[in-house]
Amino acid sequence: MNRLFICRRLVSKKNLFLRQLVLKRRNPRHIFTAILSFHTSNPLTLKNAFDLQFLIGTRKMSDSSGENATILDNLRKSVKEQGDLLKKLKSENAPPPDIEVAIKELKVRKKTLENKEKELAPKEEKFDRSKLEDLLKRRFFFVPAFEIYGGVAGLYDYGPSGCAMEANMLTIWKSHFVLEEQMLEIRASLLTPHQVLKASGHVDRFADCMVKDVKTGDCYRADHLLEGHLEKLLADKKLDKEKRNEYESVLGQIDNYGMKELGELLSKYDAKASMTGNDLTDPVEFNLMFATSIGPSGLIPGYLRPETAQGIFVNFKRLLEANNGRLPFAAAQIGPAFRNEISPRSGLLRVREFTLAEIEHFVDPTDKSHPKFENVSSQKLTLYPSEYQIEGKPAVNIALEDAVSQKIVNSQTMGYFLGRVYLFLLKVGVDPKKIRFRQHMFNEMAHYACDCWDAELLTSYGWIECVGCADRACYDLSVHTKATGERLIAQVDLPQPEMVDVVEVVPEKPTIGQAFKKEGKVVMDYLAQMDKESIKEFEDKLTDSGEVTITVDSKEFKIEKSMIREIKRYQREVHVRDVEPHVIEPSFGVGRIMYAVLEHSFQIREGDEQRTWLSLPPAVAPVKCSVLPLSKNKEFGQFVKKLSEALTELDIAHKVDDSSGSIGRRYARTDEVAIPFGITVDFDTVNKEPHSATLRERNTTRQIRAEIDELPSLVSDLVRGKVTWSEVEGKFGLFEGQETGSK
Amino acid sequence: MNRLFICRRLVSKKNLFLRQLVLKRRNPRHIFTAILSFHTSNPLTLKNAFDLQFLIGTRKMSDSSGENATILDNLRKSVKEQGDLLKKLKSENAPPPDIEVAIKELKVRKKTLENKEKELAPKEEKFDRSKLEDLLKRRFFFVPAFEIYGGVAGLYDYGPSGCAMEANMLTIWKSHFVLEEQMLEIRASLLTPHQVLKASGHVDRFADCMVKDVKTGDCYRADHLLEGHLEKLLADKKLDKEKRNEYESVLGQIDNYGMKELGELLSKYDAKASMTGNDLTDPVEFNLMFATSIGPSGLIPGYLRPETAQGIFVNFKRLLEANNGRLPFAAAQIGPAFRNEISPRSGLLRVREFTLAEIEHFVDPTDKSHPKFENVSSQKLTLYPSEYQIEGKPAVNIALEDAVSQKIVNSQTMGYFLGRVYLFLLKVGVDPKKIRFRQHMFNEMAHYACDCWDAELLTSYGWIECVGCADRACYDLSVHTKATGERLIAQVDLPQPEMVDVVEVVPEKPTIGQAFKKEGKVVMDYLAQMDKESIKEFEDKLTDSGEVTITVDSKEFKIEKSMIREIKRYQREVHVRDVEPHVIEPSFGVGRIMYAVLEHSFQIREGDEQRTWLSLPPAVAPVKCSVLPLSKNKEFGQFVKKLSEALTELDIAHKVDDSSGSIGRRYARTDEVAIPFGITVDFDTVNKEPHSATLRERNTTRQIRAEIDELPSLVSDLVRGKVTWSEVEGKFGLFEGQETGSK
Repeated sequence: MNRLFICRRLVSKKNLFLRQLVLKRRNPRHIFTAILSFHTSNPLTLKNAFDLQFLIGTRKMSDSSGENATILDNLRKSVKEQGDLLKKLKSENAPPPDIEVAIKELKVRKKTLENKEKELAPKEEKFDRSKLEDLLKRRFFFVPAFEIYGGVAGLYDYGPSGCAMEANMLTIWKSHFVLEEQMLEIRASLLTPHQVLKASGHVDRFADCMVKDVKTGDCYRADHLLEGHLEKLLADKKLDKEKRNEYESVLGQIDNYGMKELGELLSKYDAKASMTGNDLTDPVEFNLMFATSIGPSGLIPGYLRPETAQGIFVNFKRLLEANNGRLPFAAAQIGPAFRNEISPRSGLLRVREFTLAEIEHFVDPTDKSHPKFENVSSQKLTLYPSEYQIEGKPAVNIALEDAVSQKIVNSQTMGYFLGRVYLFLLKVGVDPKKIRFRQHMFNEMAHYACDCWDAELLTSYGWIECVGCADRACYDLSVHTKATGERLIAQVDLPQPEMVDVVEVVPEKPTIGQAFKKEGKVVMDYLAQMDKESIKEFEDKLTDSGEVTITVDSKEFKIEKSMIREIKRYQREVHVRDVEPHVIEPSFGVGRIMYAVLEHSFQIREGDEQRTWLSLPPAVAPVKCSVLPLSKNKEFGQFVKKLSEALTELDIAHKVDDSSGSIGRRYARTDEVAIPFGITVDFDTVNKEPHSATLRERNTTRQIRAEIDELPSLVSDLVRGKVTWSEVEGKFGLFEGQETGSK
Repeated sequence: MNRLFICRRLVSKKNLFLRQLVLKRRNPRHIFTAILSFHTSNPLTLKNAFDLQFLIGTRKMSDSSGENATILDNLRKSVKEQGDLLKKLKSENAPPPDIEVAIKELKVRKKTLENKEKELAPKEEKFDRSKLEDLLKRRFFFVPAFEIYGGVAGLYDYGPSGCAMEANMLTIWKSHFVLEEQMLEIRASLLTPHQVLKASGHVDRFADCMVKDVKTGDCYRADHLLEGHLEKLLADKKLDKEKRNEYESVLGQIDNYGMKELGELLSKYDAKASMTGNDLTDPVEFNLMFATSIGPSGLIPGYLRPETAQGIFVNFKRLLEANNGRLPFAAAQIGPAFRNEISPRSGLLRVREFTLAEIEHFVDPTDKSHPKFENVSSQKLTLYPSEYQIEGKPAVNIALEDAVSQKIVNSQTMGYFLGRVYLFLLKVGVDPKKIRFRQHMFNEMAHYACDCWDAELLTSYGWIECVGCADRACYDLSVHTKATGERLIAQVDLPQPEMVDVVEVVPEKPTIGQAFKKEGKVVMDYLAQMDKESIKEFEDKLTDSGEVTITVDSKEFKIEKSMIREIKRYQREVHVRDVEPHVIEPSFGVGRIMYAVLEHSFQIREGDEQRTWLSLPPAVAPVKCSVLPLSKNKEFGQFVKKLSEALTELDIAHKVDDSSGSIGRRYARTDEVAIPFGITVDFDTVNKEPHSATLRERNTTRQIRAEIDELPSLVSDLVRGKVTWSEVEGKFGLFEGQETGSK
């Protein structure tokens, strides 16, 4: 479609012959010839060779695919070699620094391969991001927040279109996940006290590396700045090969550098503040949480939550109880989360306030099977396992049952969620060709995680992580257990009762009470919670020397023989065992998915590059139906009102557009905000009985005509997917008429 | 119902005779006699006379209603006298201090009347808040947030029941308001920069008065502390009459005191920190917004928004555009808001983080009619106008059309929203007898507001403001216009074109450019925006002295005759006029409404005070249907699964409860979380064909039996209100069976 856009720039509107060639998508070479001959007399309209090359769609690759295949093969081999070396080093338990060096080199090789693949990949027709951005702003999907005050970076306001689209996506999410799995949905506090996020690790580790402009104080994310700086250096065509390789190698490892290394590299390559050219400070760690103080005393430091997950973990006990104490179960939460980005960028992809939808699925670590796995087992997904990344192999399209049985995916439960995530993404309108699941490599994963897959969506910014699926083991519950003393565990029925050995220290309460007074309870609690080994040790010491000194809360207590009645040993029948649940967490960045859907559904009408539109699925479209009087004629009013009331009755979000402007122009306006169906009231509506109106479908722009009374429920059935448009066309027949507004 | 509870406390379980009397709700006097005789031998079980008095339900009032009527009449007269005096003072333009004194006295008299009315009102059976709170916590509607960390006051987590209930209320809200009026719903940023809230007035005025414990630093809201202190003093029965009157007078005016007066009163009555008895600091103003810093530089101070409304006002231009530039239109927003309460209390009624649902309806100030007013005009509401409050008259039940025509309500639009708010409250389950709309008295209203009504709901905490409906005039848009220079105005079509006089200063651009260089533009902008009067003055000066000095941004510029080409005067035809829209704002405290609904729907089954339940409307109930196998018998499994899948297919939130426990016990569990319908799979389901199961309705606990295949859609129709339970009973006939679990 972009061909047409360029065509417009190249040829005047009057050159109908050329236009016709392009509109009819004739052989590009013919168009080329025609354009060249046209330009012989109009040389100024042709800007550069690229336009022509793009217009014709010739690509180097098709001419030299054999050569390129060899290049790629060699690069893949080079990645594999390094991958093999790494595996060898690991199997030999080589020293960690050696392994680290090998990983870094592997990353560089992977990056080189990826860049080449990207360069040589068959390109789609060019996507023009500025046109989409223009549409989104103009039709108020979202805009920078506080625009009239000059805006604040990383904050966006969702207008009616964006707000409704997001709400629709979340409704689908709830139905697809929460209702389907009977998950326990909660809504926890956004304000979170320090202790909780200290325990979770966010206070210590949720940080990015920052440098400042020494003069203005402007802040930059150190890695982004280095990246930008090196890319600028690489843009110099005269750069010698050695330097080029060096810079590319650094870029390949950019995610691996710590604070110290980033500082050294910035200074080595003499990077400056990109906005002013001023010098930079040394890098510092900047915690990404928004801090505040809860209550008037200033004594409860707190943060805005950086994720919704912690609200689920701290409520684990009540949630388990709500599930009658049984595993597995899942809790879910939708809501805002916050991240004080150093330098927000890429529109909705990196913002300071965003909606997360998170699931925490708690399981018995010894049983990660899933009863509904068979529902998705034959579903094929594009997986990009860490092994493949190490070996330089491309992503693979594979059925989930095979991925699980081949241990590419570590459990049925993880496999089940990957499948469900995929189906969700399709439902909301993501292009299936632009989804891949990339596994984290072992050095990317948090130290506690067993397995981690990112659903990445391809956008004009590249592959973007939109859903993270992590098996976080027992990490989260255990840190809160440690911080609070509340045992966040579950009990699982044993297949049959078991006899277990029990050892107990039975204290002589009065003696202890006399000896330690009110601290007696502390001592007895300590004795009661000792495990088998400690009791053995305690008993031996007591027998040997007649006394044992114990330390509770850094205070010492001397326990004498007389204080212990006996060490009791017996067997007890148990029916359950304690389990520290593992948690599998699919976490959805709603804004990112939304942006990807908008890119994937952005369209331009053939033959008119000004008519941009969005092909959102009806369930996601902000408004489901428009009601348009053909003109300002007053007689149309009563029918418009009747239709509008009937649609309201059916809970169908709709929009009456009785503004001036031709009907074709108003259709174009509704297409821009993705309204899938449009009812038009025209003169036949008024003059003929039974009263009827036309119904137009957005994607095909085709119309049918039906009676006023049946249109609202027909639209309802279409929106809810109970009937397809072609069925409707089949029933009512095609109507040809006002699209041109000529009636 | 509480009789039974007290009965339990009074009589041992074994005294069956007494229990039977109470259970069968026999004549209270007989029970009284029986208890007294019982207690002759068990004196310790009877705590105090109150218990007995309550148990028997005797009340003074019924014995002396004539006398009480006189008391109330006198109090009302006393309020009216003072109200008349106040009106007289105002009509005579008396000095403000005199008016203020009169208002204070009026408030005291009103308070006294109100207290007496409350005391003498016929009481409902006593509501036991602790029982409701127990249910809400146990069944995880909401709990204090971060409980395992000791909790943080004023923060609550919504569990699955609360989260779903809130979501259902908001779905109804959206359909009732947003869809019905085609409002423009937006979702704006929570983080808000300082400038915006400075302009809105929140930085300067959104504060409460605070005192601290001098030793511990504990903080108290000064008015709450004074209130508590005086109430404690008043509890002393030996207090003399004069003191009593004085304290009551202060309590009556508690909302009127400023910081200085509160300090004086606290010290006069020797109030101490209520937790420790320590001395207090002098009061200080404490701003209730949570402060944070946006971005890494620390240079953008910001707050968590205290209301959602500002997000609408700052987007006014885009919203107006989205409505094709026309007035009136409404925007809406649902989302979290924050208020750093000094001492949160009363559960969900005073919290630090809460959900607001706000509407901003923008109108032409010269036309506040509403096209749909007739839809609600005959609706009767309980209104409590400020005049009535001044005159000591009780609230009045009046049709909206009368309220508007009698100018009790200041516009059709305000009247329309009051009616719609009322209908919404009924839909979500508020008891219609516990709704009143109280008008703000002129001294309560913000200085800019034209009219303000609070929808107050009666709860065990008294009448609570749950929805505020304010006509805020042009205040909000004008402060943002002033702060940003963006004119937030609309244009309204004139009925016919008008000729207007135009005066323009036409500058001599080259001369100005030469004189002021790059500041020339500033000067020309200034000249272009001068109004008629300024131009006249400017022209006169220029003619008189040949030069005029103007000041722009505190810089002076000397304008000479040569710089002005002419002062142009002409007539222009205009078709529109500029309008500074007024805004009418209905603002809903979602958590408060939710709490009121929970109180109003809290029930106890007759005959068993342990069986508490909630009679929430099906649309509001967190879960719509339960699916219960009669026992653990394995054969039930397939039917349960089939029913569950069919309900999921129909988007019906449901819960399978296959835990052990009799069916009666499980019904009781589902009643507690308000599940309106329950399907039970029993032996007849398995053994007889066609397979059938029972369906139970929560409120009546009655059942019918229907085929498995038709039950899910039957439930769907019931939940969506397409069919009533009595119709279902009529069709299928009553089924009597497992309620007792005896099958």
